[in-house]
Amino acid sequence: MSGTVPNPFIKKILATAGPTPLPPRVSSVMAEPVMYHRDPAFVEVYERVLQQLPEVFQTENDVLLFASTGSGAMESAVMNLVRPGQRVLACAAGKFGERWLQLLDAQCAEVVRHEPGWRKRIDPEDVDRLLTENPGCEVVFATLSETSTGIVHDVRAIAEVAEKHGALTVVDAVSGLGAAEMRQDDWGIDVVATGSQKALMTPPGIGLASVSERALARAESQPGGRYYFDWGRTAKAQRKSPPASPFTAPVTLISALDVALEMIHTEGIDNVFARHALLAKATRAGASALGLSLYGDPDERSNVVTAIELPGDVDGGAVVRNLRDRFGITANGGQDELKGKILRIAHCGYFGAFDIVTSLSGLEMTLSELGHPVQLGAGVGAAQQVFVDAGSAVGSS
Amino acid sequence: MSGTVPNPFIKKILATAGPTPLPPRVSSVMAEPVMYHRDPAFVEVYERVLQQLPEVFQTENDVLLFASTGSGAMESAVMNLVRPGQRVLACAAGKFGERWLQLLDAQCAEVVRHEPGWRKRIDPEDVDRLLTENPGCEVVFATLSETSTGIVHDVRAIAEVAEKHGALTVVDAVSGLGAAEMRQDDWGIDVVATGSQKALMTPPGIGLASVSERALARAESQPGGRYYFDWGRTAKAQRKSPPASPFTAPVTLISALDVALEMIHTEGIDNVFARHALLAKATRAGASALGLSLYGDPDERSNVVTAIELPGDVDGGAVVRNLRDRFGITANGGQDELKGKILRIAHCGYFGAFDIVTSLSGLEMTLSELGHPVQLGAGVGAAQQVFVDAGSAVGSS
Repeated sequence: MSGTVPNPFIKKILATAGPTPLPPRVSSVMAEPVMYHRDPAFVEVYERVLQQLPEVFQTENDVLLFASTGSGAMESAVMNLVRPGQRVLACAAGKFGERWLQLLDAQCAEVVRHEPGWRKRIDPEDVDRLLTENPGCEVVFATLSETSTGIVHDVRAIAEVAEKHGALTVVDAVSGLGAAEMRQDDWGIDVVATGSQKALMTPPGIGLASVSERALARAESQPGGRYYFDWGRTAKAQRKSPPASPFTAPVTLISALDVALEMIHTEGIDNVFARHALLAKATRAGASALGLSLYGDPDERSNVVTAIELPGDVDGGAVVRNLRDRFGITANGGQDELKGKILRIAHCGYFGAFDIVTSLSGLEMTLSELGHPVQLGAGVGAAQQVFVDAGSAVGSS
Repeated sequence: MSGTVPNPFIKKILATAGPTPLPPRVSSVMAEPVMYHRDPAFVEVYERVLQQLPEVFQTENDVLLFASTGSGAMESAVMNLVRPGQRVLACAAGKFGERWLQLLDAQCAEVVRHEPGWRKRIDPEDVDRLLTENPGCEVVFATLSETSTGIVHDVRAIAEVAEKHGALTVVDAVSGLGAAEMRQDDWGIDVVATGSQKALMTPPGIGLASVSERALARAESQPGGRYYFDWGRTAKAQRKSPPASPFTAPVTLISALDVALEMIHTEGIDNVFARHALLAKATRAGASALGLSLYGDPDERSNVVTAIELPGDVDGGAVVRNLRDRFGITANGGQDELKGKILRIAHCGYFGAFDIVTSLSGLEMTLSELGHPVQLGAGVGAAQQVFVDAGSAVGSS
């Protein structure tokens, strides 16, 4: 087995849940000459991106675009909707749910914390109970796909409960948008925050917030304490004809997003959801065929990343290192309390059937090399069976 | 003369003060496969960027890196240093000086406003007087190069005055850093905020704040109201060994910045300053030879962008449109109160002698086409004479 010095002849494979691999056309557009952000040729790209984004969110809202990561878009939601001392409810069942808590603490909000534990899907009945027990929560914060656990939460049901209590719902969909089904308007979600580097198949550096009119009105009713992430300023600039970014636009990333959105539009958002569902199903089948358990209570909707519990006879850190150093595969292990305990196989964004075959194949060889008994090809075969049974084109990189 | 439909066979020339043209190596690195931000191969790039940045600022501070534009870095300074109600002094002699005022108003600071007018360089004696008349200003905000007017302010003298009054100095160097001479530590400047898209020869999307220990201590003494732009969080993450970005890093942009910083380091920061000074001198000579006046009181240090007053017999908007539609040159006219009155010729970042020749040549032909009497070649010739007299290699694109 090799040491930690990477072999330059190993083909590098990016298999993380973000940043995710880019389609070649997305990569190459960034190497084209940079455009001035007020040049009509760029404004055309910017306008097209703003017009195409709502389809991915399944909304008629304006989608506000920031030069930031997804965490910046999350901060925008907190800074625009919550003033110090206001009471809100935040659901956290993993590292990114906990980011809502950190953001709300930084804003000195009075936070009703719902932390049922990392293995759990948020139960809307618990949210209902907490909102009854803690009257006056005007905003509920939740996570669509919790990247740290692979669990997709039922944000539709959470939004229904929040609506019943007269509260707005804000969803972190950084890793879920465009991978796990989410229909913002139909599901009554007021704000969806996301980033460019997951299913949107663009490098990190764009933060997006799809904001309902009533959320925008709430923000405008309580100004101050924000500028760069102020929704009103960005909405006003984007609503000009033609739209004008309030600050220098991240032009190379927006050009990349333009290409990626066109690909998503061409595939069709329902086909995009179906592809992710199929890739996830094949991954789950592969893991099961290797005798491995899925983490937590994953259900049919865990279509972004599959969290697999690692067997007790192998060192979880060694699995990630072996995948990287022996096979060139960059994959995620567990974070924080799950460090060393799980492997996360991503299928979010520009992923096709053979990416799943590759990840499962790497996992099989790694387990074998680390001394865990495994029948080479068993996981791969089970995944292949899912693709064969699907009987439709499944895409490949 | 053509209409507004661009001729696709016109070679496009970016001559704005930001985004600026990229070196081909910087462009092409962004088309390489995306890396995971925790992958050792990327962490190496990130660490190198953090190590090379201080040289450009001429500082020993940590330079904090954000996924944002330069305005985000400016917001970080306001949010970390100023609490609502605190008294500060802000100097504004142009659109970007006014951004300090907007940011400070958003933060509900008590702002002593020094607005001497757009034509003026900030006079340090005025700053001294205002700090005397308004005791208790703990922070002074200023601008190095005011992009909207082409005027470079004497931030060294402003910092000396601020220091005398016990105040911290914060400088917006978004368009100046790496073009106009600035030596942060020697000049006693506590905080310098900038963006990637000007003399750093990288696309927009990275915000940078070089923060002194005492500025960091002030920030840490007054927590809350910020998360994404919190200096303490980012400093702590960057000081780990190896450094770890607090959020997903904008990997393609950081890889681009890595290439650009290596080019700056190879050229040598003093040579970089000298190149910009020479390009600016040639531009000024060209404008003068055409009988055009420079805007305001530009002095020898206006090395970022040259603002030229347009003659009264031409429509300023038509100059910009003609440059773009007839000659493919994207250049900046005036903003806000200078709209239609000036043309700004940029020489900031990846610019060489023939970029100046091109811009002046385009300006001459445009003035001629718009009916202003001009001797074709006169401005170009005067610029050439400056390059010939310089007697050294001057670089070209």
